Formats: sequence, structure tokens, C-alpha cells
Amino acid sequence: MLQSKLFTKVERKFPKDEEAPNARLLERGGFVYKNSAGVYSYLPLGWRVIKKISEIIREEMDAIGGQEVLMSALHDKRYLKATNRWDVDVVFKVISGGEKEPSFNISWTHEEVIAEIARKYVNSYRDLPFAAYQIQTKFRHEPRAKSGLLRGREFLMKDLYSFHADEKDMYDYYGKVADAYRKVFERCGLKTYYTLAAGGDFTISNTHEFQVAAEVGEDTIFACDSCLYAENKEVSKLSAKGGDTNIKCPKCGAKVSEKKSIEVGNIFPLGTRYAEAFDLTFLDKEGNKKFVVMGSYGIGVSRLMAAAVEVYHDENGIAWPETIAPFKVHLLALGNVSAKDLYNDLQKRNVEVLYDDRNVSPGEKLVEADMIGLPFRAVVSEKTDEKVEVKRRTEDKVKLMNKNEFMKLMSND
Amino acid sequence: MLQSKLFTKVERKFPKDEEAPNARLLERGGFVYKNSAGVYSYLPLGWRVIKKISEIIREEMDAIGGQEVLMSALHDKRYLKATNRWDVDVVFKVISGGEKEPSFNISWTHEEVIAEIARKYVNSYRDLPFAAYQIQTKFRHEPRAKSGLLRGREFLMKDLYSFHADEKDMYDYYGKVADAYRKVFERCGLKTYYTLAAGGDFTISNTHEFQVAAEVGEDTIFACDSCLYAENKEVSKLSAKGGDTNIKCPKCGAKVSEKKSIEVGNIFPLGTRYAEAFDLTFLDKEGNKKFVVMGSYGIGVSRLMAAAVEVYHDENGIAWPETIAPFKVHLLALGNVSAKDLYNDLQKRNVEVLYDDRNVSPGEKLVEADMIGLPFRAVVSEKTDEKVEVKRRTEDKVKLMNKNEFMKLMSND
Repeated sequence: MLQSKLFTKVERKFPKDEEAPNARLLERGGFVYKNSAGVYSYLPLGWRVIKKISEIIREEMDAIGGQEVLMSALHDKRYLKATNRWDVDVVFKVISGGEKEPSFNISWTHEEVIAEIARKYVNSYRDLPFAAYQIQTKFRHEPRAKSGLLRGREFLMKDLYSFHADEKDMYDYYGKVADAYRKVFERCGLKTYYTLAAGGDFTISNTHEFQVAAEVGEDTIFACDSCLYAENKEVSKLSAKGGDTNIKCPKCGAKVSEKKSIEVGNIFPLGTRYAEAFDLTFLDKEGNKKFVVMGSYGIGVSRLMAAAVEVYHDENGIAWPETIAPFKVHLLALGNVSAKDLYNDLQKRNVEVLYDDRNVSPGEKLVEADMIGLPFRAVVSEKTDEKVEVKRRTEDKVKLMNKNEFMKLMSND
Repeated sequence: MLQSKLFTKVERKFPKDEEAPNARLLERGGFVYKNSAGVYSYLPLGWRVIKKISEIIREEMDAIGGQEVLMSALHDKRYLKATNRWDVDVVFKVISGGEKEPSFNISWTHEEVIAEIARKYVNSYRDLPFAAYQIQTKFRHEPRAKSGLLRGREFLMKDLYSFHADEKDMYDYYGKVADAYRKVFERCGLKTYYTLAAGGDFTISNTHEFQVAAEVGEDTIFACDSCLYAENKEVSKLSAKGGDTNIKCPKCGAKVSEKKSIEVGNIFPLGTRYAEAFDLTFLDKEGNKKFVVMGSYGIGVSRLMAAAVEVYHDENGIAWPETIAPFKVHLLALGNVSAKDLYNDLQKRNVEVLYDDRNVSPGEKLVEADMIGLPFRAVVSEKTDEKVEVKRRTEDKVKLMNKNEFMKLMSND
């Protein structure tokens, strides 16, 4: 893409009303626009990141048999009434013209809706198991919407729901989802801790979260860097040890440390709670009517983008992991030269390139390139002669390459 | 995909509470689930159709320089208050826990939001023109939500917004969008009339709609089948002629006929209405401050799916145009045979195939294949021996092919 055509710009200063690094960097770089506290629009660069994360998630969900759907966002009140969640604090309710009382809410989660849909199609044990997922906007009234895109009132989530004949089958799948989630986060460049946690409004069972260590995190975990197991402080028995700095990991025995962290995913064994509320039953092999056992599994898509920014930035801007970067390389033409041929060559080879063809100073281009944070920066100037000066965003050293070398690096890396 | 794994099923009967063919066929086939009047969830087959339509739209929007974004769905009331649209009937308002008065609405359109975003980035004539689009859920309180997915309270829409220094530049782009829209609808297999219309709540100018002729349509147009120009009855001077059956097309002089039709797209010259409301200005070459001229352009994505069903169905089910079909071919193994090898071969060649591997009667498989409506049906049975019986959904004749012929047809067609 030509940067001269991109309608957003890198701002000269950080926004005044944001404290969290993710929001400061994403807004200044033109990745997102803040519409209200906790409500953001994704601009072209940010939307490219979201699409890359979404595609990674889709591939891993498809690989474990997830079937993609898109459920409604307007939910009749019968759904949440059935599970006593209509008056949960975070629910946004909807009224229209003539109404005095709301008859809908907007989606904060979809256990109820998918349970009702499943009821239409599940009759026998032969119809089980299956799993359905979607990537969709969720709405939650956070009284203190803060931390930028980490805790929004409107955010993008991948939610997967699975349906089983018994607990054992559900827990087998639960393990597969945990493995798929590890792959998703690894592919997005994030190190996550598999964390024992409570169930919140969703279930009475213990659940698991995937936590990314970060200073700005709102959770506290006891995390083992040896086996990546952790326990959320809220439920951990390790928490009883208080100031003890020699806590041992219950899984591997290595030393555990206390960290602030960001929850990027969670997996919930739901039991039969939602099946009971929606009369979601099946006939087993012996002809007995039983309730379906469900699991639900979330990944915060926009939160994942924000978590990546929290982990991968320095004083000059973002440093995107290559798999989720909006483009692979930032091509800068400094001074009175053009990199148009190089740009065309890169495009021909399907290398995702942002070409800064604008008529602005070299200093401005270099500063903005660091702020946007693509994995590679390639400079062409009067000084580079026929060569290209290539630098990784995360390294200081630059390398002068001839065009063939550069093309090879871009095509193969 | 293996049909035995698909969690939806074709129902034995049409739904009792739907009249419009699109809803009757899409629900019975398991493409969508009706959550409330005018509120649908897209199930795996339906979501595949939506994704295909969306990709066609993206390609054509990108080709005219559209930059993809995703804007927020929660809109602070400042947006619609600024353009006196806060109390438009169709607006759904949102309240949360402690509130008495709503302070947000959920997105029914995005002119206001994009105008505010543009204000951040537009300073000079050099920042113009540009265009941004999104594919997003819209919410409109339709008191009489009917016609299935043609007129929903929640629906998927592609909306594009363009920004220009003057009217001329806007109208130049308006023409490009009209051409891109023609390509989108043609690629989706729909014949559309380019129709003069009124501006509704959006603009005082005349606008243009893309209309698909269909019995279930809610609009009436005077349509020319020679040049595909039409006029919406609401604004047409042709309407004055009443019962006259010899109305001439004002563009080409051919005979015009009155048709019921479905609006699948619209394009609006917005002038400076939204720029004035949000102080969206720029400095022209002479340094004069001017308001930005905008256009907005919509395609009903879920409505397009419904319109395709209205046009392409018969008494046995849907007959999807190949470009938007959920799969290209429905492979049926009838009786005591397996088509597993053929299925694997098709998958290896990236042919999108739904393989009915279920243990149900041949009659049931054939009836359901017609209902789902993939472009090709390929039957393997004891009767076909080493061959494959291939039939197009829209034709009666079947053809016995050897596997090589069949593979060639599937890979090349």
C-alpha cells in the first residue's frame, strides 16, 4: 500500500486521555480511533492486525472441528431470563421508539443463544459431539472502562461452544481446545500461562485462563516459567503463602513468581447448566433422555492485539510480531529518490509492503516507521546507491543489501 | 466437509411462521436460525455464503481504493444529536444498569462516526479524496420485521464512505462506485437495475439504488430491460402515467415495465451535511477553509443472500449461483458404497465439496441435496459402477462421467 493514500496519519504526540501503553501507541499510530471510553473503531492498519489474528484463530478452530457461524447480537430477554443473567451488571439493554421496558439486550456472551440453536438439531447421541464458533462484537458495560483495548465496553471476541454426551467427552475436547489455544497464542508471538481460575458468571466449576504477563495487567497470577502453569490469585491455594518467595509450582516443582497479567483466553466447563435452562436433551444409546454437557471457550481478539502491543513495544513505538503485523516491511524512500520499482517487485511477489512515498522529511519518515512498528524497515536513499538498507524493528544494526538479497529475505523469511 | 459432521440438518418441513421464500428455504435448509422476528443467526452453510459475498465485495471495494475499517457499533448520543437523527424511529437505544436515559444507540448507519474520524486526519486538500468501508452488523427497529432476511432488525451491511474536495470529484467517484457495484452484483449472479430514488433520512439529493426484480420485493420500479435503468415509483415522473403500458425508458427509449423489486444496494451523494455537523473542513489550494463533500454507499450483505434465494430457487429448494454457493459440489454416496476416495481427491484439488456420508436413505439424500442447492450434484452408487452421475442443480439431465472427466469438470469449471 502507498502511505500517501492511507487516510490515517501517525500523530506527533501521544493522546492526552490515555494511560495504557496499548491505547497510547495504537491511537498515535493511527491503528484505532477512540469513540468513547472503552469504545474503539479499527482503522485500516489496526483492522489488518485484527484480520491476521482472526485468520490464525480460524485455522486453529477449524483444525479441531469448529464450525464457523455468526449468531445474532440482539438477544430477546427470554435468553438471559432463562439463566438468571438478565440483571447481570454488565448487560447493555436495548429500547426502541415506543417501549418503556427493554425487551432485548445486546450480546455480552452466547451460551443461551447457541443452546437454543443446538436444541433444534440435537436429538440423539449420534448428533454429538460438535462445536461451533464465531468471531463477533461483544458488549459489556464496564463502569470503569480503562486500560485502552484491554477492557472495553465493545470488543471483538472469538467464542467457541462445544456439545457432548458426557463430562468425559467434554473434558477430552477441553484439552484439545487448550492445545489449539496454545497454538493460537504462540503463532501470534505471545507467551501464555495456562492458569487455574474461577468461573465468574458462567459456571461454578474451576476454569482455565490463558494469561500474558505484562505490567499493565489487571490480574495477578502465580506463574511458573518452567512449565507455564499458573494459578489466578483469586482461586489459588498458593496465595495463602502470602509473602513467601519460595512457592513451588504444583505441576513441576520449579519456583513460582507473582506477576501482573492480561487474560487473553479462557475455557469453561459449563456442565448442564445451559442445557437444563433450554431443555437441550438427547437420547443416549439405551434410549434414556439426558442433558447435553457443554463447554465454552473465548479469545479476546481485540484484547490480543492490545496485549501484543503491551509486550512488544519500546520507547519509539510498536514492534509487531511478524505473523500479526499489518505489513511485513516498511519501504522508505528518503530524499530525492523513488522506490517505486522495488515496491512493484515486492507486490509482484506478494510481500505485504507499506511504501512511504510521501513528500515529507527523512526524519519524519524514520520516526513514524518506528511508531508503526513493521517487522522490517527498508530504506532507499541517495546514500544507499543501488542497495537497500535493511533493519529489523527489534534490532539496532542495519544491513546494506543488494536488491536480490533483499528480495530473497522478504520472500523467504 | 463431511455432512455427518455438520451440526445443522435439513428440516422435513418448511417453518410455520415464515412466508417469504428466502426465509422458508434458508431456515429449512439449515442456513440460518431465527432468533426473533427480523433477527437471524447464520449457521455454517449460511455463513459460508455470507463470507463468499463479503470477499467479492472486498475485492471490488479494494479495486476502487476503498480502505477497510471496522467502526464501533456503540454510538454516543452526540453523534446522532449532531445531525438531528437521535429520534429517528428505527434507532435502537441502549441503557445500562444505573441509567434512566439512554446515552448510546447501536449502529444503524455510520455517516456521523466516520465524519468525526475523518476530522482527525483531514487538514488540507492533499488529504483528499479517500474512501473507507466496512462490513458490519446494523440494527434498525423495523416495527413490521417481515420478508425474512430482506428486512431485518439486525442485518449485515457493507457501507462505504467517500470524502472529496468538491462535488465534481465526489460525483466522479460516485460513478466508479456504481460500476464497482454492478460488478459485485454480476459476480453474485444478480441482474440489477440502476434506479433513481429519494434520499430518505440521509440526504435531500436524489440517490441511486440497485434493484433486483422479485415477486416478494417491497419496492416498485419502472424498469427497462434493455439498458437496466429504472426509476423508483416514489420519485419517478414516469409514475404520473399510471396505467400506461407504453412507458418509454428516458435513457434508451425502450419499453419500460412496472416490477416489484428488492433494493440490494444504494449510493448517496451527501453533500456537506455531515461535514457541517462535525466541522469537517480542509484548506484548499488557495488556503480557503471549505467543508468536505461526502458520499455514502451501501450493500445489504445478508439481504443480497436473501435476494439470491428469491431469484434462484424452485419447488425443490435453493439453486445457488456458483460464486456464492457454500460448496461447489454435493457428493452423495447412495446405498452400500463409499465415495471417500473421490472426496479426498476433490479436497486435494481444493474443490469445495460437501460429502453426504450419512447412513440415511437415497431418497432423503437426494431431496436434501436439492433443498441445499449446491451447483453440482455428484452421485456414486452401486448402479454408477466406477463412474459418477453428475447433475447441475438447474438442469434436469444427468451425465455419467468417469472420474477423470468429473475431476476435470470440477477443477476447471
